Amino acid sequence: MVKKVKAALIVIGDEILSGRTQDANINYIAKWLGNLGIILDEVRVIPDDATRIQKTVNECRNAFDYVFTTGGIGPTHDDITAANVAAAFGFKFSLNAEARKLLEDNIGKDNMTEARLRMAMIPEGASLIKNPVSAAPGFQLENVFVLAGIPVVMQSMLLDVEDRISGGAKISSKAIHVFAGESQFADILSEIEDQFENLSIGSYPFYKGGTYGATFVLRSAVSSEVDEALEQLKKKISESGKEFFMGEAPD
Amino acid sequence: MVKKVKAALIVIGDEILSGRTQDANINYIAKWLGNLGIILDEVRVIPDDATRIQKTVNECRNAFDYVFTTGGIGPTHDDITAANVAAAFGFKFSLNAEARKLLEDNIGKDNMTEARLRMAMIPEGASLIKNPVSAAPGFQLENVFVLAGIPVVMQSMLLDVEDRISGGAKISSKAIHVFAGESQFADILSEIEDQFENLSIGSYPFYKGGTYGATFVLRSAVSSEVDEALEQLKKKISESGKEFFMGEAPD
Repeated sequence: MVKKVKAALIVIGDEILSGRTQDANINYIAKWLGNLGIILDEVRVIPDDATRIQKTVNECRNAFDYVFTTGGIGPTHDDITAANVAAAFGFKFSLNAEARKLLEDNIGKDNMTEARLRMAMIPEGASLIKNPVSAAPGFQLENVFVLAGIPVVMQSMLLDVEDRISGGAKISSKAIHVFAGESQFADILSEIEDQFENLSIGSYPFYKGGTYGATFVLRSAVSSEVDEALEQLKKKISESGKEFFMGEAPD
Repeated sequence: MVKKVKAALIVIGDEILSGRTQDANINYIAKWLGNLGIILDEVRVIPDDATRIQKTVNECRNAFDYVFTTGGIGPTHDDITAANVAAAFGFKFSLNAEARKLLEDNIGKDNMTEARLRMAMIPEGASLIKNPVSAAPGFQLENVFVLAGIPVVMQSMLLDVEDRISGGAKISSKAIHVFAGESQFADILSEIEDQFENLSIGSYPFYKGGTYGATFVLRSAVSSEVDEALEQLKKKISESGKEFFMGEAPD
């Protein structure tokens, strides 16, 4: 098997769990990791709760190569991520001079308040992650990357993370669609998948204007497996008398 | 404290983790549970993997009042949710006569295939959950509800779940917005929150056309707490010279 590098994402935020906010970070980070050859292997959405943050960070940092957290690093009372990531590691949590300077350069020294200073509280031993949008930094502690929750800020922080992580083989992926129930191809998919060591085939039914169809997604760290499997699948679909099409799935 | 009823959601699907599909079920279920007075307290997104499904189902069914799963109950080789929920409970997994009849009534007995019959494989002792859209049922096993992954099908199944669960006190929630940095109100939010036993205040910064603002969300199972806290907060914002507005957050 080709080497697999796996990551977990911890989304910290009552607003996602209450349904008030539709999460946008899971999908963005999933794609971003995929492009780096890293598999997003688990996501957990948890509340802004000290015990839960510590427990989840510790479970994930031991189980995955990389861990990302989003949310809870702002200046208000419900922003408790940084303190609890420090606690999870058993590290001290203190005012970071570099982070303080970044904030002061951004808002002006005279505008610094006690609340804003909270955003310069960083676990000792952490390296800062730049925030080009609004200055208040994220940080990295070993294999854990602590990021903002606001999508535009979070995305800007990833620019400073890219060079710190390395992936396994990049995953190749191709999709093929049929306007037919997926059940008709169940055995075929299974047979094709079994022939290739690294290949996985996902089958995703869709329902569009009263008609059922299915998208089959072939994924492998070995791109030739995807190509060979796709040729086999095209042949089988043609033999069944159904039409297939490539490219984007129908909306 | 008012009684809290808590649920976990397990989203099973490689397509969410790869970023190919933007999940729509988390937000829908979060709101649906909220309306029933049930707190969505954790979400896990995991791959279509036997061990991971069993482990996650067992962890969650012991830790939460209710557990919902979405995805992986179709007719193809990667649909392994039902078999592994059965395995998590240590229950047998077999062809369910009632589920078979539902499928046959929908597609016609002559159109039944071996692949489609997989959708009638149900853990023994489970009660079926109706699927008005495409017949293939979900099922309930104790406090675990196994639902389809396609949003329209999943949503239709929830109609048959509503009468099987009961919530705690319904959560009241009100939001207030200011065009000002949230850090300015950090101490005030904390002070107000501390006065009420069941109240939580979330602070959510937004960034709109170059201006920062913040939404404060007041939530409590005791609606009078929300109203009293909101009055205090309005007064404090007015005193600060900032304007506030109610209703939907700015896009």
